[in-house]
Amino acid sequence: MIVAMQDHAAEEHIQAVIERMVELGFNVHRTTGTNQTILAGVGTPGHFDVAEFGVLPGVYEAYRISSPYKLAGKSFRPEGTQIRFANGVVVGGNQVILMAGPCSVESREQILASAKLAKRAGAQFLRGGAFKPRSSPYSFQGMGLDGLKLLREVSDETGLLVITEVMEISQIELMLPYIDTFQVGARNMQNFNLLRELGHVRKPVLLKRGIAATIEEVLLSAEYILSGGNYELMLCERGIRTFETYTRNTMDISAIPVLKKLTHLPVFGDPSHGVGRRDLVPPMALASVAAGADGLLMEMHPNPDKALSDGAQSLFPEQLEKLVAQLRLLAPVVGRSVA
Amino acid sequence: MIVAMQDHAAEEHIQAVIERMVELGFNVHRTTGTNQTILAGVGTPGHFDVAEFGVLPGVYEAYRISSPYKLAGKSFRPEGTQIRFANGVVVGGNQVILMAGPCSVESREQILASAKLAKRAGAQFLRGGAFKPRSSPYSFQGMGLDGLKLLREVSDETGLLVITEVMEISQIELMLPYIDTFQVGARNMQNFNLLRELGHVRKPVLLKRGIAATIEEVLLSAEYILSGGNYELMLCERGIRTFETYTRNTMDISAIPVLKKLTHLPVFGDPSHGVGRRDLVPPMALASVAAGADGLLMEMHPNPDKALSDGAQSLFPEQLEKLVAQLRLLAPVVGRSVA
Amino acid sequence: MIVAMQDHAAEEHIQAVIERMVELGFNVHRTTGTNQTILAGVGTPGHFDVAEFGVLPGVYEAYRISSPYKLAGKSFRPEGTQIRFANGVVVGGNQVILMAGPCSVESREQILASAKLAKRAGAQFLRGGAFKPRSSPYSFQGMGLDGLKLLREVSDETGLLVITEVMEISQIELMLPYIDTFQVGARNMQNFNLLRELGHVRKPVLLKRGIAATIEEVLLSAEYILSGGNYELMLCERGIRTFETYTRNTMDISAIPVLKKLTHLPVFGDPSHGVGRRDLVPPMALASVAAGADGLLMEMHPNPDKALSDGAQSLFPEQLEKLVAQLRLLAPVVGRSVA
Amino acid sequence: MIVAMQDHAAEEHIQAVIERMVELGFNVHRTTGTNQTILAGVGTPGHFDVAEFGVLPGVYEAYRISSPYKLAGKSFRPEGTQIRFANGVVVGGNQVILMAGPCSVESREQILASAKLAKRAGAQFLRGGAFKPRSSPYSFQGMGLDGLKLLREVSDETGLLVITEVMEISQIELMLPYIDTFQVGARNMQNFNLLRELGHVRKPVLLKRGIAATIEEVLLSAEYILSGGNYELMLCERGIRTFETYTRNTMDISAIPVLKKLTHLPVFGDPSHGVGRRDLVPPMALASVAAGADGLLMEMHPNPDKALSDGAQSLFPEQLEKLVAQLRLLAPVVGRSVA
Repeated sequence: MIVAMQDHAAEEHIQAVIERMVELGFNVHRTTGTNQTILAGVGTPGHFDVAEFGVLPGVYEAYRISSPYKLAGKSFRPEGTQIRFANGVVVGGNQVILMAGPCSVESREQILASAKLAKRAGAQFLRGGAFKPRSSPYSFQGMGLDGLKLLREVSDETGLLVITEVMEISQIELMLPYIDTFQVGARNMQNFNLLRELGHVRKPVLLKRGIAATIEEVLLSAEYILSGGNYELMLCERGIRTFETYTRNTMDISAIPVLKKLTHLPVFGDPSHGVGRRDLVPPMALASVAAGADGLLMEMHPNPDKALSDGAQSLFPEQLEKLVAQLRLLAPVVGRSVA
Repeated sequence: MIVAMQDHAAEEHIQAVIERMVELGFNVHRTTGTNQTILAGVGTPGHFDVAEFGVLPGVYEAYRISSPYKLAGKSFRPEGTQIRFANGVVVGGNQVILMAGPCSVESREQILASAKLAKRAGAQFLRGGAFKPRSSPYSFQGMGLDGLKLLREVSDETGLLVITEVMEISQIELMLPYIDTFQVGARNMQNFNLLRELGHVRKPVLLKRGIAATIEEVLLSAEYILSGGNYELMLCERGIRTFETYTRNTMDISAIPVLKKLTHLPVFGDPSHGVGRRDLVPPMALASVAAGADGLLMEMHPNPDKALSDGAQSLFPEQLEKLVAQLRLLAPVVGRSVA
Repeated sequence: MIVAMQDHAAEEHIQAVIERMVELGFNVHRTTGTNQTILAGVGTPGHFDVAEFGVLPGVYEAYRISSPYKLAGKSFRPEGTQIRFANGVVVGGNQVILMAGPCSVESREQILASAKLAKRAGAQFLRGGAFKPRSSPYSFQGMGLDGLKLLREVSDETGLLVITEVMEISQIELMLPYIDTFQVGARNMQNFNLLRELGHVRKPVLLKRGIAATIEEVLLSAEYILSGGNYELMLCERGIRTFETYTRNTMDISAIPVLKKLTHLPVFGDPSHGVGRRDLVPPMALASVAAGADGLLMEMHPNPDKALSDGAQSLFPEQLEKLVAQLRLLAPVVGRSVA
Repeated sequence: MIVAMQDHAAEEHIQAVIERMVELGFNVHRTTGTNQTILAGVGTPGHFDVAEFGVLPGVYEAYRISSPYKLAGKSFRPEGTQIRFANGVVVGGNQVILMAGPCSVESREQILASAKLAKRAGAQFLRGGAFKPRSSPYSFQGMGLDGLKLLREVSDETGLLVITEVMEISQIELMLPYIDTFQVGARNMQNFNLLRELGHVRKPVLLKRGIAATIEEVLLSAEYILSGGNYELMLCERGIRTFETYTRNTMDISAIPVLKKLTHLPVFGDPSHGVGRRDLVPPMALASVAAGADGLLMEMHPNPDKALSDGAQSLFPEQLEKLVAQLRLLAPVVGRSVA
C-alpha cells in the first residue's frame, strides 16, 4: 500500500498514518519530499481496507498497489487454463467454442429442435434455462427440474454438452446429474455464498460479468470459486449498463482482451445479452472472436417470434448457420479455429 | 402497448404486427397518418415482451404504456403505507426514523456500545451485519448466528429494534426469532427467489436499490415481495454506480422524491453506502431528509478506525449526535419530525 | 508519482522505468520488498502523463500522487472565495444566493414578467438564455443580442443581476456590456479555448459541470480560468448522465460537499437541469442547500406551458415563492441564510 | 407523438392534453380503453418538446414516435454515402479506410517519419493534431498553424490525405488550405455553432461521438452539419464513459452496426481513444472491422515513449504494420477489403 500525504501535512498526521500501517503489519518506508511525504507499506497483512486510509486527516490518497486476487491472476498459470470435457471438447485451447440454444426450455419439441439446430450449426454446447430469474413476478419462470431432464435427454441424443444457469445453492445438488457446466448469471456474480459452494463442486462453471461489475470485481468473484478448489472456470462478458438505451446493454468488447491479459481463465462473449437485439448479434459475435474470445454464448430459438422469453435477442436458426460460416473464416485471422 | 411503424412501412409488415398483437390478446386500434401508422394495443394480456416488437420488420419503436408493477404503485394505496412495530415505532408516518449501528457485529462489547450510542443519539433501530457479503474471499465474513443473538440481546437491553441483512433463503428461518426487519442488500435486489420467500414472511423488509438498478426495477422487485402478501415493505436509496470515482457510489437523492411520487412504500436514504466516506455522510443525510426521506440508515461505530469492515464510512458517535441535532431542526421545514 | 512494479518484475524493466522517471526530472526513491518493487518519484516535472508508465513492461500500476490543479485547490485560499457585486450582493458568504428565470429570453413581456416574479420571490440574479445550444437544428435558437439587451433592461428595472450563457469566444465582447456573470454551460465545460479567454475577462464566471465530467475534471477546467487571472469563479452541479432514465440527468448532490471540501470556490446547485421535471425541483433545491450549496440556479417561467424551451422543468411562479419560503427556514439549519 | 394517460385519468386532464396537442398542430386520435386512454398525435408540428407532456397532470408517459433527425436517417439515402477524394480514395465503399498518425504534430522530423510509416503500413490518411484541447492548462497545447503546414507538406510528399481536428469556428478558414478532412472531436460533438459552420464548408468532416452522447444524439449532431448542405460526413465511435476504469473509455463496438443500420453515413472506429492503451488497440481495431466499420482512426508514433501527448495509446510502427496485415485477412470475411 502507498499513502500519499497532502502537501505540507502535519507531522502528527504522518505519524498517525505510520502507526496504523505498522499496526496492520506493514513495514513502512518513508519518502520525504520538499512538499509531500509518501509512505510505502511493504508486506502482506491479511485484512485491510485501503479506503480507511483515504479518510484519515492529512492524507491526499491511499493506493492498494498489489492485485487483490491471486489465483485468478495470469501469473498463477501463465500458460492459460484448459478445461477438458468427457467427449473430448476442450475449452481454452485453440478452438473457439460455441454454446447455443434458447433462453428457456419450453417443451420437449422446442428443446429437441434447438439441440438439432445447434448441433448442425456447429455448436459444442446446448444452452437453455430451466430456472429463470425474471424481473417481473408475472413473467414465465421456467420449467425447473423437468427442464433439466429435457436438456440432458436431447443433448445426449445430439452429442452436445449442457450448460444452464444455477440461481441458488439449493439447486446445485439437483442440477449435478443433468448438466456439464454451471452458468452463474450476471445478477449472481456477487452472490458470494453461491460462488463459495460452486468452489467445492467438481464441475466446470461459467461466470458472467455483472452489469455493473468492474473487471477487477469479476476477477475477485472468480477468486471465490478458485479458492474453494474448483479451477474449471470460464468467464463471460455479456454487456454492462450505461446511459445508451438503443441496446439493452453496452457490450464491453475490450473486456475480452483485458481479461485475456490479466487472467489465465478462458473468456467467452455473450452477444445476445450484450446487445439484446438479434440483428446486432452477428456483428458482435464476430467482434468478440476478433478481439480474442475463447468462445461464444448465443441465444437461438427454432421460432423466436413464439419464444416465451428473450425472443427479441434469439437468432433464427439460419442466422446462426450463416454466422458460424463467417466465424470459421474469421477465427484463423487471430490464430484460432471453429469446428 | 403502442407500436409506431416506420414512415411508409409496408402494409404486410403492419399486418404482421397487428396479427401478433391480436394473438397476444390485444384489441388493436389503428391510426393511419400521411407518413406513419400507429397501432395501439388495448387490453391486458398476461405475458408479453415489448422488446419482441422492436425487432419486427417495419417497426420504428414499441412502447409499453402501462406500469409493469401494480401493487407497488401509488394508486394501489394513495394514502401511503405505514408500518407499526410492537414498541410503538411507526415507519412511514410523520416521524423520520433513524437506523444506526456498525457495518458488522464484531463482539458483544462493540455491539453493546454501538446500541447505547445509537439510542442516545436518537435512533429507533440498531443496524449491524451478522452475515457479510464481501467482494474478496479473504475479508471478514461476519459472526453469523452469534451475531444475531448479540443484536437481539443488546437491542432488548437498550429498547431498540433490530434490522440486519438476509443474504439467502436458508437464513430466513434462522433470523426470524432475533430480528425486527429483514434488510435485502443492493446485491440481492434482483435475487428473485429470495424476494419471493420474503413475500411469505410476516416480518417487515427493507429493500435496497441495486447499484445498477433503475427506479422501475426497484419497484418490480418490490412487487415480488408484495405479490407474496407481505405489505410491510420499505425501500432504500443507497447509491448507484457511475463514472465518478471520488465517492464510492453516486447517491441518487432524486430517487427519494421520485419513489415518494410513484409508490406508497416508505423510502429511506443510506448516505453511508451512498458516498462511502464519513465526512460526506452528514450533508447527504440532511439532503435525504430535505428531499423527503421517511428515514435514514447510517453506519456508526464506537471506534471506526478499528472497524473490521467499512470503517471509512462509519460515523464517530459524536458526529452522529451532532447530525441528529441538525436533523431535528431540519425535519419541520419539510413537515416532519425527528424523535 | 508512484510506480508499483508487478511482483518479481525483471530488473531491466525496473531500470527502464527509473531511467524514464529521471529523464522527466524526478528524483527516484526505490523500495524493494520481497515480491514487489515500488518507485516513488519526488519532484515537480512540468509535463508528464502518468498513463505512459501504465503500459511500460513490468509495471503493475502508476499513480499521480499530487493534485493536478493548484489554483483551484482549497489550500490556495482556505478561507474561501467571495465574489462581491456592485449592488452589494456577495456570493460565497453566509447568504445562499438565488438565480431564477426562464430557460430562454422569448420577448420583452415574458422576460419582464420573469424578472418581477424572480425579484418578488427573493432572487438576486435573473437568468435567461440569449444564445441557446439546442441538440436539434430545428429547435428555437434564442434571441441573441436582442435578448441580452432585454435582460439588462428588465434587470435594471427590477434591481437584479444578470447571468446568461456564453457559448463561444466571439460572444464575450458582445455580452460584456449587458451582463453581470458569464455562465459556461455543461457542454462547454471542456471548451478550453473559451475557458482561457474567460480567464482574461474581468467579470465573474459560473462554470457548470459537464454531464460526463468527474469532479477532478471540473476543477481542472476551473484551473484554466483561474490561471488566466480571473478569480471570480463559481462552480455548479447540474446533473450527470447515468443509466437512470426517469430523470433527465442524475443530480449528484454529493458533488456539492465534495467540491466545498476540495476547492475554495463557491458551489451552486441547478436542480432544474439536474432532474428536468418541475415536480422534482423543490425537493432537490432543498437537498442542495442542506448539502451545503452557496446558491441555486432555477428555471422559472411566467407560463411554463407556453415556454419555447425547457417548459417541463420550469417552475410556476407560485412554486418558486413557496420553495423560497422553505429555503428561508432550512438555511439556518446549516448555518446560512436566504434573503 | 403518443400520450398515454394514467389509468382512470380525469376527463378534464385528458381534455387539457388534447387541447395542448391541437394547439401545437397535431391531429389527435383518441383510444379509450377500460382503464386507460391513449392519445395519438398525427402530423408534423415544427417545434415541440415531448418532455412538456410528461409533467402534465394525469399523464403516464409521452413518447415521440418519429425520428428527430431526417437527413441523417438511412431512408434519406438507403444506398449509403460515399465520399470521393481527389487522389481516388473513396470512403464508404468496399474498402476499409485507414487513418494513422501521432496524437500531435511535434516537429518536421516526427511528422515526416510518421507519414512514411503510415504510408508503408497501408494508410490512406495521415492524422495529427495541430490544435490540442488538453484537460490541464499546463499540458502541451499543439503547434498551431505551423503544425498544419507540416501536415500538408509531408502528406504531399508521401501521397496521403490529411485529417486534423478543428476546435473552433475561427480555425476553419485557417485550416482550409492545408487539410482534406476536418475532424470534430468528442468534446465538440455538441458545439452546435461549430457544427453549423462546418455545414457550410465544402470539405469532408469526420464527427466523433461524445463520451456521454447517445447514438441518437450523434445523429442529431450529424443533422446540424447535413442541414447546412455538407453531405460529406463520416461518424466515428471512440469510446464512452462508464464506470469501468481499467480502460480510458469503454469502446461501444455495437455503436458501429447500430449506426450502419440507422444512417447512410460512413462509420469509423477509433480504438486508440476507445481504450487508451496500445496493447488493446489491435484487438479493438480487428473487432471494429469485424463489426462493420468503414474505416479506422489509429494513433501511431515513430517513438511513442517520447510522444508529447497520448504516448500510452500510440502504436509502435511495427505494431501497426502487423495489425494491418491481420486486417487484410479479416476484411474479406465481412465482404470488405484493405488496401
